Amino acid sequence: MNNYSQLFKRTKEAARKLIRVSEDQIGEVLARLAELLEEKTWYLLEENQKDLDRMDVDNPMYDRLALTEQRIRGIADEIRAVGQLPNPLGIRLEEKVLSNGLYLEKITVPLGVLGVIYEARPNVTLDVFSLALKSGNGLILKGGSDAEFSNRAIIQLIHQVLREFEFPEQAFLLLPPDREATKALLEAVDVVDVIIPRGSQGLIDFVRQNAKVPVIETGAGIVHTYVDESADLEKAQAILLNAKTRRPSVCNSLDCLIIHSAHLPNLEQLISPLLEAGVEIFADSVAFEVLKSHPEISLATADHFGTEFLSLRLSIKTVKILEEALDHISRYSSKHSEAVIAENQGVIDRFLLEVDAAAVYANSSTAFTDGAQFGLGAEIGISTQKLHARGPMGLRELCSYKWLIRGNGQIRG
Amino acid sequence: MNNYSQLFKRTKEAARKLIRVSEDQIGEVLARLAELLEEKTWYLLEENQKDLDRMDVDNPMYDRLALTEQRIRGIADEIRAVGQLPNPLGIRLEEKVLSNGLYLEKITVPLGVLGVIYEARPNVTLDVFSLALKSGNGLILKGGSDAEFSNRAIIQLIHQVLREFEFPEQAFLLLPPDREATKALLEAVDVVDVIIPRGSQGLIDFVRQNAKVPVIETGAGIVHTYVDESADLEKAQAILLNAKTRRPSVCNSLDCLIIHSAHLPNLEQLISPLLEAGVEIFADSVAFEVLKSHPEISLATADHFGTEFLSLRLSIKTVKILEEALDHISRYSSKHSEAVIAENQGVIDRFLLEVDAAAVYANSSTAFTDGAQFGLGAEIGISTQKLHARGPMGLRELCSYKWLIRGNGQIRG
Repeated sequence: MNNYSQLFKRTKEAARKLIRVSEDQIGEVLARLAELLEEKTWYLLEENQKDLDRMDVDNPMYDRLALTEQRIRGIADEIRAVGQLPNPLGIRLEEKVLSNGLYLEKITVPLGVLGVIYEARPNVTLDVFSLALKSGNGLILKGGSDAEFSNRAIIQLIHQVLREFEFPEQAFLLLPPDREATKALLEAVDVVDVIIPRGSQGLIDFVRQNAKVPVIETGAGIVHTYVDESADLEKAQAILLNAKTRRPSVCNSLDCLIIHSAHLPNLEQLISPLLEAGVEIFADSVAFEVLKSHPEISLATADHFGTEFLSLRLSIKTVKILEEALDHISRYSSKHSEAVIAENQGVIDRFLLEVDAAAVYANSSTAFTDGAQFGLGAEIGISTQKLHARGPMGLRELCSYKWLIRGNGQIRG
Repeated sequence: MNNYSQLFKRTKEAARKLIRVSEDQIGEVLARLAELLEEKTWYLLEENQKDLDRMDVDNPMYDRLALTEQRIRGIADEIRAVGQLPNPLGIRLEEKVLSNGLYLEKITVPLGVLGVIYEARPNVTLDVFSLALKSGNGLILKGGSDAEFSNRAIIQLIHQVLREFEFPEQAFLLLPPDREATKALLEAVDVVDVIIPRGSQGLIDFVRQNAKVPVIETGAGIVHTYVDESADLEKAQAILLNAKTRRPSVCNSLDCLIIHSAHLPNLEQLISPLLEAGVEIFADSVAFEVLKSHPEISLATADHFGTEFLSLRLSIKTVKILEEALDHISRYSSKHSEAVIAENQGVIDRFLLEVDAAAVYANSSTAFTDGAQFGLGAEIGISTQKLHARGPMGLRELCSYKWLIRGNGQIRG
């Protein structure tokens, strides 16, 4: 027992009531919330400013913390869009009639109560709320302390709308941003059905180490692209540039180019657009030998492999055969997004079969790993684990299922 | 790093190779293993006897530990049956073509490496091996120390068959039954994709408390059956008897009868077959008032609710309305199997919608919660959690999925 036990039980009890609300009612609540956010823009900006005043403008988190009129309008639009997505609940996944006449249905249901731990990004509070409500889940939020004023203002508006519609507002709880609350959340077995950490690798590691509740890990992408002997180098050049430089700070961006040694003579040309875009390169000794005239290219150390750079940096690994590329990926990949560039169909098939990752690409940029791109409508994160949900997680991934069995007095012999 | 790190890495590397073996080859390996078990029956019985010699005959685990010629034949038949089940791998779950021409497929893949921790039941070693191999998964087994001789003999035969077929035998590892090995397994993040404890609640609790790897909890069933005001009492009588006495030691057996107070005058008759079958009953004060003439019925204490009896014991809770039954179940259920007996369709619908459990029954015995009954073919356990797999877990529940994306040079704008 801790100070939060009663609060969490109340959340769980309130969340149970969500199963009774209709899809239409949920849509109305989300539409009203979007409207209220726009009405109260001045108030949100004022509270957000209190958080911003406590942070150094040079802090890389400052921009993520900041709300603007335009951002609030964008968030409101996203909330409306979530309200319009297909209902993920009550979908019949299987149906069978047993020989004794029992009628079985397997149908989607909410997970129950989600725990979400995140950093100083107030938009996450609203994203996650809209996805949780739409999927019939209660929610316990633990945001970063840097966003405390913003998050409190947001949860207040959420509760106001829930009250207007006589929804169980207690099913949505914002915790104070302190250690005790985090610890209580991580240990809330029997109340919280899953914890989803959203943020840095450090946050994810902390959650995995300390949670007693099941965790879905999201985020970290150590991404490779293998340029096979059979690759079309023009395609390869464009794909590498896109995968590395489109948005270097996101998880699907390229970290390591694996080059077949047959292409060492073409390597300089292959990476020239990357160098022009200001990418700093760490090449293994074989590749370094052909690239060393470039001052922006240095010799890779062990640390440069298996690193998620999240910046304009790239390592290069040279291989003589496909197996070596597969072994390198197996060793260093975070199982997020991996790609092969090849024209040889046998190589493509083997790469797609053997590489173990959420998204395995042939002849395409890894930048497409994204819920919206995959048609999920909205995304709570990109899972890098294999249980429950893998890759982009949308509303369906926030659901479990149950078996309903209808009988007429059947007993088992 | 610990002594097991290298061994586990070797297991993971070997398990990667399983993706290349065909459904037919797996069938042949399992058929050969079944044959070998029958050929080596004398050897297995001899090794099993060494374990039995160390255990007291009165120990309730003695019977579960014991192998016999007939049991070995039964296990061999089950292994052959698993070999004949439909292949759970490579199933296309979704398919879509994006407007830019990218072709996406979501297909089933093995989870990777399963960790299974269990008690002194040597048959589990073979059950779990056949399911793991059939689903393309590597396996790290940690059996009970009481079954050490039996398990070592079994894994030796498994490895012999794998060698005959040039399968990666190192993908299937039996750990020594000691604490250090268990700890290493529970912390083997990056090697083990899921841990499934099979055994007592104590074992499951230990695993949940100590695992850093994701866990699927199986087993514990605190099972209720609610007899509504509208119930057909003849059906109710038969269902209660079956759910309680068919196999009292299994997880789907009845623990608590919830009775609508309108049926208090019929309660004695309703439970008379249970009393005849020797069931010991703990009734709440209201029900006790009408039953107290029976010496085998006593007044329930708080402990009798929320208890998985696994024996011929039953608690009775009286309620005045459906809501009270729903609240009682929400509070005490382990979310395994729950039933309502009612003729009122509104009551049935509400019970099926609102009760949160893996299997929710109307007018049927809960004894049907079982992989074979649900048509899964074979079962590794019954999950009582909501992530990934819920209720009976068969081969499909030992799989994850991945997205394959085939392109022709696509980059993201």
